[in-house]
Amino acid sequence: MPLTKKPVTGMKDILPEEMAVRNYCINVIRETYAAFGFSSIDTPVVEHIENLLSKQGGENEKLIFKILKRGEKLDLSGPTTEEAVTDSGLRYDLTLPLARYYSAHAAELPSPFKALQIGSVFRADRPQRGRFRQFTQCDIDVLGDPSPLSEIDLILATTSVLEKLGFKGFTIRINDRKLLRAIAGKAGFPEEDFEKIFITLDKMDKIGMDGVRAELSEHYPEDAVQSYLSQFADREGALSEADLRLMEEVGSELPGIIAAVDAVKSADFRVQYDPTLVRGMGYYTGPIFEIAMDEYGGSVGGGGRYDGMIGRFTGQETPAVGFSIGFERIIMLLLERGFSVPGSAEKTAFLVDKKMPFAKTAEIFREAMALRASGHTVDIAQMKKNRKFQKEQLTQAGYTEIREFFSE
Amino acid sequence: MPLTKKPVTGMKDILPEEMAVRNYCINVIRETYAAFGFSSIDTPVVEHIENLLSKQGGENEKLIFKILKRGEKLDLSGPTTEEAVTDSGLRYDLTLPLARYYSAHAAELPSPFKALQIGSVFRADRPQRGRFRQFTQCDIDVLGDPSPLSEIDLILATTSVLEKLGFKGFTIRINDRKLLRAIAGKAGFPEEDFEKIFITLDKMDKIGMDGVRAELSEHYPEDAVQSYLSQFADREGALSEADLRLMEEVGSELPGIIAAVDAVKSADFRVQYDPTLVRGMGYYTGPIFEIAMDEYGGSVGGGGRYDGMIGRFTGQETPAVGFSIGFERIIMLLLERGFSVPGSAEKTAFLVDKKMPFAKTAEIFREAMALRASGHTVDIAQMKKNRKFQKEQLTQAGYTEIREFFSE
Repeated sequence: MPLTKKPVTGMKDILPEEMAVRNYCINVIRETYAAFGFSSIDTPVVEHIENLLSKQGGENEKLIFKILKRGEKLDLSGPTTEEAVTDSGLRYDLTLPLARYYSAHAAELPSPFKALQIGSVFRADRPQRGRFRQFTQCDIDVLGDPSPLSEIDLILATTSVLEKLGFKGFTIRINDRKLLRAIAGKAGFPEEDFEKIFITLDKMDKIGMDGVRAELSEHYPEDAVQSYLSQFADREGALSEADLRLMEEVGSELPGIIAAVDAVKSADFRVQYDPTLVRGMGYYTGPIFEIAMDEYGGSVGGGGRYDGMIGRFTGQETPAVGFSIGFERIIMLLLERGFSVPGSAEKTAFLVDKKMPFAKTAEIFREAMALRASGHTVDIAQMKKNRKFQKEQLTQAGYTEIREFFSE
Repeated sequence: MPLTKKPVTGMKDILPEEMAVRNYCINVIRETYAAFGFSSIDTPVVEHIENLLSKQGGENEKLIFKILKRGEKLDLSGPTTEEAVTDSGLRYDLTLPLARYYSAHAAELPSPFKALQIGSVFRADRPQRGRFRQFTQCDIDVLGDPSPLSEIDLILATTSVLEKLGFKGFTIRINDRKLLRAIAGKAGFPEEDFEKIFITLDKMDKIGMDGVRAELSEHYPEDAVQSYLSQFADREGALSEADLRLMEEVGSELPGIIAAVDAVKSADFRVQYDPTLVRGMGYYTGPIFEIAMDEYGGSVGGGGRYDGMIGRFTGQETPAVGFSIGFERIIMLLLERGFSVPGSAEKTAFLVDKKMPFAKTAEIFREAMALRASGHTVDIAQMKKNRKFQKEQLTQAGYTEIREFFSE
């Protein structure tokens, strides 16, 4: 019986060329974050269904791949429900497993704990170009440090990674949930509506100021909407006096964070206060940030402070702040640029005649091993009938030298 | 609502210390195999259920984590079956996805194609010490080369990896399915019973010669059993005249493979013909091998030639040979030895007073960035009230220098 050849809907096989770029990036990420004191950890891709459905994942909870119970625990003998027949599912992000991990292992971990996770997450989204149902996320999180030192270091670390991968000229958009709330409050919106209002504000990029105005005007008096939106007039450059006053009033750390990153950064990027930045997840409590890249026309990463979440699970208050790189987007951008992994080894192919006696074969292998020990890549293969085609393929695969060994 | 803190049954969280060793090993594996011309590839962890159930996985097919259908495709309104409610599952090995991958992409890949896969596989096994339901496999495969050059190179590559990880004195046990069949045939066993007989023979390690004899004697005449088992008397050292005659008779490549590996190997290991070696999977067709390590008392890897399998799926005959390292066992052995990752960076921690003014903070970050650029690991954190405990934790985490920055 022939196999179904394509991968399952919405997931993809990774060919050698892309995989080389992915592995290179993962190594750059690990090395760079390690220099900032982050420790790599890992969690299972399978998570308890009750954790996945614990209301931290927002819309993602609708997209869970659920796993069927096994053995006696599974009863399909009559009408039943998803809840009754599943006990686990595939993780849709790395934040929830991190919260579980930290609640289980805090006693064995230093405080603050600086974690790096690179791993697959799964969302049964409608398949569309460039979005996959299995994709890699790359998160750093600092758990247990309430100070803005963490925000500064997260931004410096992530921009260092991007710089090492050859990106420049990007912008770190930064805002603070405290400012979002203060501005909405001053405009007279009721507090229980804030999250809904932020969801509308978040569409500014897509539907523009007029679109946001129209959407808000359906529910709120025009003067409130007008007063609110006047705060988001086009803005560039440094913080205004009014910005600074508001930040001081609500105790936002943004001025210090922006000043420190600006003073320290060596890389070519900007940090820009953006009062319209929302970030989707309701669990953020303080500074939030996002990486905007013109050539992509969207976010290639983001994060923020979420001081409440870990404590809600562990019962022990734990300040937390995280930054996630849009790994798949970074890879896509690098591939589009024709990025090639630097410092690749010289590649030599040995083609060996089918009738080669074994004494001679051993000599050939000895030579290959010596070359490999000196840093070369050496491929050994039997000569094929269509030697010309075989050599063309090897050249295409980057073999710059091809040596042929004949038995006579 | 508090989270369920433990990972799902049989899976595990990986703490920073182990993760560092895992990442180091993965890099050694990737670099070493790359020097032998292997290209890294990746396949989704989710696979079509019909592929997973296509009878290549042996016993593993009973252990599949199945994924529930979603949306309108899912009908739980009455009595139903596992088949009706699932459309995919988690892969239980890397060989089946490789066969699917190759059948989908052969036209884009060189021939022979040398693939390296490192990835998670899943088996809903009864949980037991040291065996997990999600674990990492690490496979190399050569697809499209019928010659024993591939076996030689696979063995040299994998033993190079083990050598670089500090292992020595191990044994590569090697046999050939052709020899297994020939010996069973000469003893007079019916061909349709061969696989069953090999399963019994495979227990030699556990139940000994007497156990194997007892089990076979239940089904076969004593003289056949006697004649069969006489072939497996204790043996050491080089191939005997009789071995060589039999190998020549059935066209086994073992003499050449053993001679070449012995002549070329620089590492401290032995290659030993072992006529009792079976390897579980029925799909093997030629040479098979296994790594035996005394300190582990079992196999830490193995593989063999499986010329039939890929073609059965693709319709195009494709010789194939693979070698899998028992990644989890290797990690366990390294951790038991107290292995520490070589060449780790010097680690310095900066503890910063809570009231530090931002101008001074920027200076501290600038210093940290300079140290990081020169290869140091620098952790920056706010000073905690219990500074003594904080410093102890940092020392435990390998920070050899701790610098404190006070605001006054």
